[in-house]
Amino acid sequence: MQFHLNGFRTGDPAVAEADTQHGMSRPADGLPEEVDVLIVGAGPTGLTLAAQLAAFPQITTRILDQKPGRLLVGQADGIACRTMEMFEAFGFSERVLKEAYWVNETSFWKPDTDRPEAIARSGRIQDTEDGLSEFPHAILNQARVHDFYLDIMRNAPARLEPDYSRRLRDLRIDPSLSSGQGAPSHPVTATVERTDPGHDGQLETVRARYVVGCDGARSAVRQSIGRALRGDAANQAWGVMDVLAVTDFPDIRLKAAVHSANEGNLLIIPREGGYMVRLYIELDKLSENERVSSRNITIDHLISAAQRILHPYTLEVKEVAWWSVYEIGQRLCDKFDDVPEQEVGTRTPRVFIAGDACHTHSPKAGQGMNVSMRDGFNLGWKLASVLLNRCAPEILHSYSAERQGVARQLIDFDREFAKMFSARPKTSADDDGDGVDPAEFQKYFVQHGRFTAGTAIQYKPSILTGAPTQQHLAEGFGIGMRFHSAPVIRLADARPMHLGHTVKADGRWRLFAFAGAGDPAAPSSGLRALCDFLAAAPESPIRRYTPAGADIDSVIDLRAVLQQEHRALAVETMPALLLPHKGRYGLRDYEKVFSPDPKGGDIFTMRGIDRERGCMVLVRPDQHVAHVLPLDGYDELAAFFEGFMLPAA
Amino acid sequence: MQFHLNGFRTGDPAVAEADTQHGMSRPADGLPEEVDVLIVGAGPTGLTLAAQLAAFPQITTRILDQKPGRLLVGQADGIACRTMEMFEAFGFSERVLKEAYWVNETSFWKPDTDRPEAIARSGRIQDTEDGLSEFPHAILNQARVHDFYLDIMRNAPARLEPDYSRRLRDLRIDPSLSSGQGAPSHPVTATVERTDPGHDGQLETVRARYVVGCDGARSAVRQSIGRALRGDAANQAWGVMDVLAVTDFPDIRLKAAVHSANEGNLLIIPREGGYMVRLYIELDKLSENERVSSRNITIDHLISAAQRILHPYTLEVKEVAWWSVYEIGQRLCDKFDDVPEQEVGTRTPRVFIAGDACHTHSPKAGQGMNVSMRDGFNLGWKLASVLLNRCAPEILHSYSAERQGVARQLIDFDREFAKMFSARPKTSADDDGDGVDPAEFQKYFVQHGRFTAGTAIQYKPSILTGAPTQQHLAEGFGIGMRFHSAPVIRLADARPMHLGHTVKADGRWRLFAFAGAGDPAAPSSGLRALCDFLAAAPESPIRRYTPAGADIDSVIDLRAVLQQEHRALAVETMPALLLPHKGRYGLRDYEKVFSPDPKGGDIFTMRGIDRERGCMVLVRPDQHVAHVLPLDGYDELAAFFEGFMLPAA
Repeated sequence: MQFHLNGFRTGDPAVAEADTQHGMSRPADGLPEEVDVLIVGAGPTGLTLAAQLAAFPQITTRILDQKPGRLLVGQADGIACRTMEMFEAFGFSERVLKEAYWVNETSFWKPDTDRPEAIARSGRIQDTEDGLSEFPHAILNQARVHDFYLDIMRNAPARLEPDYSRRLRDLRIDPSLSSGQGAPSHPVTATVERTDPGHDGQLETVRARYVVGCDGARSAVRQSIGRALRGDAANQAWGVMDVLAVTDFPDIRLKAAVHSANEGNLLIIPREGGYMVRLYIELDKLSENERVSSRNITIDHLISAAQRILHPYTLEVKEVAWWSVYEIGQRLCDKFDDVPEQEVGTRTPRVFIAGDACHTHSPKAGQGMNVSMRDGFNLGWKLASVLLNRCAPEILHSYSAERQGVARQLIDFDREFAKMFSARPKTSADDDGDGVDPAEFQKYFVQHGRFTAGTAIQYKPSILTGAPTQQHLAEGFGIGMRFHSAPVIRLADARPMHLGHTVKADGRWRLFAFAGAGDPAAPSSGLRALCDFLAAAPESPIRRYTPAGADIDSVIDLRAVLQQEHRALAVETMPALLLPHKGRYGLRDYEKVFSPDPKGGDIFTMRGIDRERGCMVLVRPDQHVAHVLPLDGYDELAAFFEGFMLPAA
Repeated sequence: MQFHLNGFRTGDPAVAEADTQHGMSRPADGLPEEVDVLIVGAGPTGLTLAAQLAAFPQITTRILDQKPGRLLVGQADGIACRTMEMFEAFGFSERVLKEAYWVNETSFWKPDTDRPEAIARSGRIQDTEDGLSEFPHAILNQARVHDFYLDIMRNAPARLEPDYSRRLRDLRIDPSLSSGQGAPSHPVTATVERTDPGHDGQLETVRARYVVGCDGARSAVRQSIGRALRGDAANQAWGVMDVLAVTDFPDIRLKAAVHSANEGNLLIIPREGGYMVRLYIELDKLSENERVSSRNITIDHLISAAQRILHPYTLEVKEVAWWSVYEIGQRLCDKFDDVPEQEVGTRTPRVFIAGDACHTHSPKAGQGMNVSMRDGFNLGWKLASVLLNRCAPEILHSYSAERQGVARQLIDFDREFAKMFSARPKTSADDDGDGVDPAEFQKYFVQHGRFTAGTAIQYKPSILTGAPTQQHLAEGFGIGMRFHSAPVIRLADARPMHLGHTVKADGRWRLFAFAGAGDPAAPSSGLRALCDFLAAAPESPIRRYTPAGADIDSVIDLRAVLQQEHRALAVETMPALLLPHKGRYGLRDYEKVFSPDPKGGDIFTMRGIDRERGCMVLVRPDQHVAHVLPLDGYDELAAFFEGFMLPAA
């Protein structure tokens, strides 16, 4: 954590100084007439977006929710490794690590070969492959994830809090947008109905530059832009319950997929705190157009189904913290914003949908909340960059392009996974039926580990993601993939840390310069030449895009990683751009230069970096690798930024 | 973290359910007439003690401070590895790790051999030896440490908050205590003066079972029991300043000891946040009985002294967050409680002193706050155990016996260290003067690394600490020393973790059973036999000292560490005592059994445990090893507890 740059402040450094310049003071009660961004829905998707925007007090954001207050229980609980990396960027990964259950291993159970009426363990595997992420796969009540985001928002300069008890009634986009005529500054008008006592039924009108629908599978925002979820019929019913129970099932504290011979399947997800467990229980197939609610399934029904599946083990439920039954099909919107495909070249989006509003799937792969939050993370920095006049609004097209592709992949995966999960297990190798061999299911699970961890996502080349022409300079930093962190030692204070943890959710780009062979301080070094270019050349992106008077790293944050051990280097010989003077006092920032960590593994080896030539790795504000370029790829670097950045005022 | 044992609760699990049974509701304003423990002084010592006692809602605790509110800036900042381990027990180590500066390396500067008027680096070393602790040596504003303790107290069942603006005026101990006659239940009477507006000068009278003076070097509690700090004259003046500064001194982000030829010495302590730095500057020797305040030293004086010492490097101070000048000698009380040596056999202590109230020393070795907090940790569980009727009040004698010895060691170390630090540096090997060779100083620093880390402290054999007759069974768990944690895998959920982190600041004893060779589940195994003894034998300490109806691990918490890899073991074959049913639902606790962590190192090897025989390692509630015994040392275990425990009601 860096703080005290502009003077010592007492108290919690996570609580930012409240902004007083941008008229953020809220009206005593009620919504303002105009906002920059209106977020509809304070679930994980909306909160991720709101937490990102709250970092920028210049941007007026409001987030609405129908609920009367914060979420208390239930719903999603899976937190993939990649999501933990994002939480680290937001600054609360350590809180999740402390509270959550860690999914270390997964076990598989199938009918016992000799006594098919009893289940038996068929396999047990490490859940996440070694080295995939510095974070574990974790499980925590969605309500706590909300709490952490709410703290981030509350402590941010904008002091953002959700406006609860508000339902979107109507959303209209100024028609002049489609006609291509001069657009108004706040072209989206939302009509909002209050549902809180004393204000029930009261309508509020808000004009917004941008509206984001994070309002779930029945999204009113989605309907207002004329889009629909399309896909499979929701004909599989599931039950889920969070329980405190006594059982002799041995793997009750492991994630476990249990296939019984004739009683159905269930998934065990141990929960935080050491005692609670979640059970997902497969229920009956539904007829076409049948809703599970029509079946009047009770908690007793779920408990007895679980007891039958777990036979011969017992399950005695002592308390039910939360339960639900639901049907879910795999459904997807064809586009995640308001611009029809044929108008992409003529106007930019003003309304977006994210999370369950544009993709729904089964919860069994633990993906829903994760992919949805990362929708919010993808969109947040783009909206902020446009509203701060750093980037052209054309980058907003990339949200749908990137995230709709991810959602499509997820849905394909989920369909396959759900099918395998629900299939009758083969009881022996001789079984020729349409059942699934439990060993096959386990193999599929292992193969898709990177996908479920969220680390396999790769955005395609676009204005925000370079073409992989120089990927060989850093094979381990796949262009379009998330920056895969590795251990380093910070030169100035010899601190062992993760390089990726310098990438905070602050809207900045990171340019990591991995030095080539030789003395990095030598006048001939490629690192020094790069620093000279970035500091002095008129076409330097740092010069072009950093506003006058702002800290030199406030838009593009240059960091260097050297090959030498840290004690062989002298911090005072580093180029001045790597020891920048910042803030109102011109204090030096000593946290820009790193060396490999011999105890943690050499980052050059771990990530396949060309030791002779070194390279630049450019990382987007959402932690995805935007480009890999040679250390002297000045023109390519400048051209890349030129594609979407606006020169600073 | 374990939670939800007695039912699901929404919200932050660190916020305990408020106690409603013990009449803890505070009077609207003012102190109660009677308390169990009255703590005078809400500095780090008093807060450690208060945080410990707040865990027990049955105990009425109040903590007073003269200040009008919480500390905002300044004072101590060093946090030794051992203190971080204690913070882990209190549940906030991750907050300190996140905010603090980590002392990874220390550099040494001396006059340049060729140009003695300029300083030059003479050495650079790793600050803490590998494997000494799982935590780093850290630096953080004392005010933040207070904040973390205040959060722990506020979130504890007792919802304890300090009573500020209160000065102790008078403390009287009922004379019947010394006469050996039947003592009153609350024999200590404190008269307290309020200093807050509206109540200024108002007196309150509180009767307490116990009073603890954590009220600093001018302790009123110490005076009331007729004790005095004795030791060296305070004839060395020092200045300290926390500054935001621009400098070209290369090691400004390393802890650095700088000896100049003729301008004096200083110590650089980089601070949290990446920009702030603390400088300790040696000032003039004082005459006997002279106070530094008489010299009217200003901040400009300190800054220019620092500038001269750092020559040829520049130091431009931009902001001073806090500064002070002070004189400190090494002073010590001969005893830390109210019982004269000759009365130890006839009565038990009722008034204690802790921290600066009974030992003062220079801040240069970064020990003061650490040793003081650990005074509070040592005393806290003992007071709680006596007040809960778990232990005989005779254990309270051990507080002074143990901590006075530690303070004496510290003061001897500090005297030597301060002398070496202040000595004129030898400028060459030929220098025959009384100066100190900088290489010698560095060597001394390394040699005493374990001492300054706080991990070398070893309590002598007593009723609370066994004789080292069986130390060879676990060479790495020195009896009387703090339990040196090591990595393990938790069997039931395969979670990699630190075994020592199971030792929380909850007043419980931990009995770690390290299994010998062979199958731990076999009927013949020593582990199973131990569990049988502990579960069933009338002389089992668990049976004798656990109150009826309480969880089986609520006084003595048994945990087992097996030699096999976790996947080779079946949790369901473990003895029932290692899968205990707990709480109002009888839920099973799955967190009692561990295996070595092949990735982190084998705990049996790391701690020198006899693989053939295994052993028991008994750990006190303050994380110190109480005993090492054979796995079948049932009689010795029973006899050890018999020495100080009271049978449960």
